[in-house]
Amino acid sequence: MARVSQQHLDARRRQILDGAASCFARNGFHATSMQDVLKEADLSAGAVYRYFRGKDELIAAIVTDVLDTVRGILEQAARESPPPTPDVLVPRSLARMREERPATLDGGEWMFPRLMIQVWTETTRSPELAAVLGEGYDDVRRAWGRVVESYQDAGLMSADADTDAVARAMIALVQGSAAQMALFGGISERTLGEGLRALMAMGPARADS
Amino acid sequence: MARVSQQHLDARRRQILDGAASCFARNGFHATSMQDVLKEADLSAGAVYRYFRGKDELIAAIVTDVLDTVRGILEQAARESPPPTPDVLVPRSLARMREERPATLDGGEWMFPRLMIQVWTETTRSPELAAVLGEGYDDVRRAWGRVVESYQDAGLMSADADTDAVARAMIALVQGSAAQMALFGGISERTLGEGLRALMAMGPARADS
Repeated sequence: MARVSQQHLDARRRQILDGAASCFARNGFHATSMQDVLKEADLSAGAVYRYFRGKDELIAAIVTDVLDTVRGILEQAARESPPPTPDVLVPRSLARMREERPATLDGGEWMFPRLMIQVWTETTRSPELAAVLGEGYDDVRRAWGRVVESYQDAGLMSADADTDAVARAMIALVQGSAAQMALFGGISERTLGEGLRALMAMGPARADS
Repeated sequence: MARVSQQHLDARRRQILDGAASCFARNGFHATSMQDVLKEADLSAGAVYRYFRGKDELIAAIVTDVLDTVRGILEQAARESPPPTPDVLVPRSLARMREERPATLDGGEWMFPRLMIQVWTETTRSPELAAVLGEGYDDVRRAWGRVVESYQDAGLMSADADTDAVARAMIALVQGSAAQMALFGGISERTLGEGLRALMAMGPARADS
């Protein structure tokens, strides 16, 4: 009997997670049943339960996967010379996420921002999910920290800037932009880049402000 | 018979909305009943239904009230000379919100960020709420636009900066910071201000980046 390849297992796992992500983004976590996920992924219960025991494991795996992707994008950016400035990197992070997670909802809307909001709300109710999201967030925060250090090394940012404070502001920009995409649509990566560029060009705040 | 003063009516209305906001932030919109709201606000059904017919009206009123408050903070800022720069104004907006809406959850956590996330998720499911939030968001976006124009008038920002793009980036920063507060706690207004200050001090992006 031929053994199932790791590649096949990975593809199957992704198929399940993408199906679950679509269901959660469309109808919310609570209104989605495992039956809905099976139908969306077009798989049997046996095929799915082999990978995930239930919705909690699915959502945890989705969150871990997405945050791993974000971290990879940032780690690559930190190694570039010169490192991409925030007006380039923040929009690029969103664009790469769109490339790597292109799934859309029925109306053509990019699914990911809406999924993100669902996950946040669920996080405030589930200590298990809060732990998973918190760990992934810490990783992303450290990865942004390394990007900021690369700005400092390249002389693009003052050496005495608070690395973590900048990292958290960058994360806030990505989170808030995605929230606007989910809620109102229409904020493009280009718009975001222009807004950031104008902010960066303001120069140091005056002591009296 | 003495007529009930407008002041009394306003205070009663606020008492109901604060009670409802606490319930929604703590347990989510769907898990909250009108009975829960009556209990939290310590009022009779008659007293509450005189103002609001149900949960949908409550949540719409909360959203409208909060966005009106934000707009007022920004309109005041746009009239200051010199206008407060983003590293001052973004943290100040959050601090003022905390002063004007100080309600906390049982663990001492500021309630507002968690409420915001609940409202976002609900917005993706309710066209009526989406219309209310969309209108309030447009007002806040215009108010931020006037702040950005005041930067340009004061020579703090280039006259050819895309006003609306900067406004949306500022809103994203506030939204993302509040999301981090709700999800992970611990991002202070001071941290946010320092992150923004370092970003502003980067200077114009280089053409080659």
